[in-house]
Amino acid sequence: MAVGRFYLSCLMLGSLGLLCILFTIYWMRYWHNGFAWNVSDLRFNWHPVLMVTGMVVLYGAASLVYRVPQSWVGPKLPWKALHAALHLLAFILTVVGLVAVFSAHNKKHISNLYSLHSWVGITTVFLFACQWFLGFTIFLLPWASPWQRSLLKPIHVFFGAFILSLAIASVVSGINEKLFFSLTNVTKPYSSLPSEAVFANTTGMLVVIFGLLVLYILLASSWKRPEPGILTNRQPLLHDGE
Amino acid sequence: MAVGRFYLSCLMLGSLGLLCILFTIYWMRYWHNGFAWNVSDLRFNWHPVLMVTGMVVLYGAASLVYRVPQSWVGPKLPWKALHAALHLLAFILTVVGLVAVFSAHNKKHISNLYSLHSWVGITTVFLFACQWFLGFTIFLLPWASPWQRSLLKPIHVFFGAFILSLAIASVVSGINEKLFFSLTNVTKPYSSLPSEAVFANTTGMLVVIFGLLVLYILLASSWKRPEPGILTNRQPLLHDGE
Repeated sequence: MAVGRFYLSCLMLGSLGLLCILFTIYWMRYWHNGFAWNVSDLRFNWHPVLMVTGMVVLYGAASLVYRVPQSWVGPKLPWKALHAALHLLAFILTVVGLVAVFSAHNKKHISNLYSLHSWVGITTVFLFACQWFLGFTIFLLPWASPWQRSLLKPIHVFFGAFILSLAIASVVSGINEKLFFSLTNVTKPYSSLPSEAVFANTTGMLVVIFGLLVLYILLASSWKRPEPGILTNRQPLLHDGE
Repeated sequence: MAVGRFYLSCLMLGSLGLLCILFTIYWMRYWHNGFAWNVSDLRFNWHPVLMVTGMVVLYGAASLVYRVPQSWVGPKLPWKALHAALHLLAFILTVVGLVAVFSAHNKKHISNLYSLHSWVGITTVFLFACQWFLGFTIFLLPWASPWQRSLLKPIHVFFGAFILSLAIASVVSGINEKLFFSLTNVTKPYSSLPSEAVFANTTGMLVVIFGLLVLYILLASSWKRPEPGILTNRQPLLHDGE
């Protein structure tokens, strides 16, 4: 039962994450002429897609690696490596997403890093870089002592969740900003809620719901890997009467 | 030592919260002609101030009531009542902040609830209302069983933190939106980072840092009220060698 519920949640989360990515792609294809790296206007369009894919969906999925029941038993190292590798992939997509917006801006002589969206966004990516580097050094490399690891683990988990919250704030303010830029038609402004506005606002709300589910599974669910040596009345899901 | 660290954190948090409010007031006074309820342009200016004060600073402070060491010993009811009362005050300020923006919009025939900022913002306030009502019914009124309370407590704590995260996303997107509306001077646009832009962006970053500190103390610090009947190697701070 418990394993069934977990996989049902994963299926919901996966579908929701896919929907977030597909909605962002559709928004950019249908209303903003799609994607091409060598055209500065179309190069920008990679920015929202890569940020939602890397910084939200893949980041969220990578955060939940230790909630998979199979990770509860046996050696932890392969799961650590998977956690780090998925986050590295998320980080690479994020950096390409940043390159897309910086280079598109530079080509059109638009300033970089002036809006609050960009300040919060770049802070999020900077924290993500620190978090990955520290996580790799402390938890994957063999040099840190168990005492150092147990001291830093709650901080690592907390910042993992906080960075995802900041990523959601960045996506919300970014979609809002993009719509104020593009919906300038006086007969159909943003305030008249044309179809693009409804669609992109809905995409933003899907990202918020995706974040809610990831954070819930990460912080509040009972699907946590039991710590060795700590007494618990929970049994690993795989042994839970299945 | 531990009590000293806690009160030092409270002092930092209080100063930072006060700074968030004062910065928002200064932004509205210095660049947007201050406050007056009977002038629709100036009535709007209450909106950012009341949202930052109610939905972020007072909400954040109210969330941390059970982290005060004095609340760890003795009866819990007065602390519950304080928690509910502070949140109610935060909610009232939030509602007045909403009335300010809706009525200012209506007076100027501007549509309501079209931007993603407003969709996320109104969702945040709706969740806050549900959270307060359920919290009051389950945890303050005497009818719920201990079993129901212990089942719902982690969900209540999780949504408390999630609502604060959404409030921060709303504030970030709101400040961003307001700056795109007001910095329309072609010689000094938002992208040239005039003084108002730097000041308001800084206000947004202060709100983010305030949120980070509240969430850290709420979710990851060791300043938690020990649950009765649960074995813990932590001692109440008040007995911690003071």
